[in-house]
Amino acid sequence: MKTYLDCIPCFFKQALFAARAAVDDEARIKAVLDKIGMLVSEIPLNSSPPETGREVYRTVREVTGVDDPFRDLKAKSIDKALALYPTLKHLLGEAKDPLKTAVRLAIAGNVIDFGANPDFQLEQDIQEVLQKEPAINHYQAFKEKLARAQDIVYLGDNAGETVFDRLLIETMGKPVTFVVRESPIINDATEEDAISSGLDNVAAIVSSGCDAPGTVLGGCSELFLAHFNKADLIISKGQGNYETLSQEKRPVFFLLKAKCPVIARDLGVKVGDVVIKDALPSK
Amino acid sequence: MKTYLDCIPCFFKQALFAARAAVDDEARIKAVLDKIGMLVSEIPLNSSPPETGREVYRTVREVTGVDDPFRDLKAKSIDKALALYPTLKHLLGEAKDPLKTAVRLAIAGNVIDFGANPDFQLEQDIQEVLQKEPAINHYQAFKEKLARAQDIVYLGDNAGETVFDRLLIETMGKPVTFVVRESPIINDATEEDAISSGLDNVAAIVSSGCDAPGTVLGGCSELFLAHFNKADLIISKGQGNYETLSQEKRPVFFLLKAKCPVIARDLGVKVGDVVIKDALPSK
Repeated sequence: MKTYLDCIPCFFKQALFAARAAVDDEARIKAVLDKIGMLVSEIPLNSSPPETGREVYRTVREVTGVDDPFRDLKAKSIDKALALYPTLKHLLGEAKDPLKTAVRLAIAGNVIDFGANPDFQLEQDIQEVLQKEPAINHYQAFKEKLARAQDIVYLGDNAGETVFDRLLIETMGKPVTFVVRESPIINDATEEDAISSGLDNVAAIVSSGCDAPGTVLGGCSELFLAHFNKADLIISKGQGNYETLSQEKRPVFFLLKAKCPVIARDLGVKVGDVVIKDALPSK
Repeated sequence: MKTYLDCIPCFFKQALFAARAAVDDEARIKAVLDKIGMLVSEIPLNSSPPETGREVYRTVREVTGVDDPFRDLKAKSIDKALALYPTLKHLLGEAKDPLKTAVRLAIAGNVIDFGANPDFQLEQDIQEVLQKEPAINHYQAFKEKLARAQDIVYLGDNAGETVFDRLLIETMGKPVTFVVRESPIINDATEEDAISSGLDNVAAIVSSGCDAPGTVLGGCSELFLAHFNKADLIISKGQGNYETLSQEKRPVFFLLKAKCPVIARDLGVKVGDVVIKDALPSK
């Protein structure tokens, strides 16, 4: 997905949120925004938003001197999600179609943006996503392709959401490579976060090699690209991965909730809609 | 009111909205945002948001070559409001306390941001403001001070809203000087808009001399300042006038709906709240 002009005000909003998480010093936070201002003319609209997001967060780190402003929030998010794990595991045990419920739960995990909205109504959001009919619903195709898949790559998104990913991977019962970001960026899951979520028990954890809040293939490691290129099923969680991979001709399923108007428009859905999208639907 | 850091992303949002109203050329619109980016480091946080707003819209005008991107929208707004005028006049004729209803209607006019949201539910918004208890309600003080006032200055805000201002001025039945912006800025009312709304029949129309989307006293004309300084009652409509005058020790009543979180926080109310605020409340 390209960068839309509407993304530009949003970069400033995100920078402000991250700078405030990093320091409590108005002049320093303003200095972050000043520097992002200088970046605007260099934003190429034909790149994806996470490519600029990477520069935005790099600026936050440089000006504030804080490498991982969301470290505490991520740890709390994982703890919160782990506390729910037994209840959700039980829910899956009782489900008529456990895979379907696990897919929905994995999307519910994405709904919960621990970074932007730490005070969400967790249980309520889960109920909503479990009940809401996805606006794009390629679940049947997902189920069929998953049954035949031998080599699955699962692209993670936020810390905390990772516990929900773990539930889906456990339900799928297939060998999975779980992909994390190379270094801390917003509240995206790193290797450390994946391990804290217990993902190392159910998947091989691999870094994408990329430090953008998405999967920018041009900036990924050879190791990751080897996995990506030979996988027969790729599960892509969240907006950032969609933004960077929506044009790729690979067997990707995008699982996400459309949380911003730009992505909703790009997908042809409404803000708040749940999406299970096959990147290569059969004719 | 000072400029909060949260105003900075919003300046970009407003610039984008205005640039899109001006031209249909993505590269040109991007050029507007690039130039606003360069301005960020020059924004003094101790100035009011409309002072930066003026620079933002100046940039839009310079880069797009369009002096008044909201001209058509303003004309439509006034037409829509004039079409409602007879119904609202009838409503006032039947009201128990016509002044109270007229004050509420004038705030309803401010609710309707013709610029940002041209597809509002006009009748529904009016009903809501008529029924909703203001979060800050100095109506009684307003009524008493109005009864004694000899020299009233009324600071207008948006085009269209001006028709609602006319209804309040007719209901007050006192000589009023109605103040407009010196030149087009967003959808703020200019002299032309005030005349189209019929305000010239019920008030003397005076320009503030200021081309910011508020009343920046340091940039106002001598003529306006003479009016402002001798008035014994000043009615200030909308957010922009509040932002520029909230610190002044003058007999001002602020009538507005808090439409943004920054102003709501500054006032100590919630977004969506209706406000009738006496700047110099009695002890």
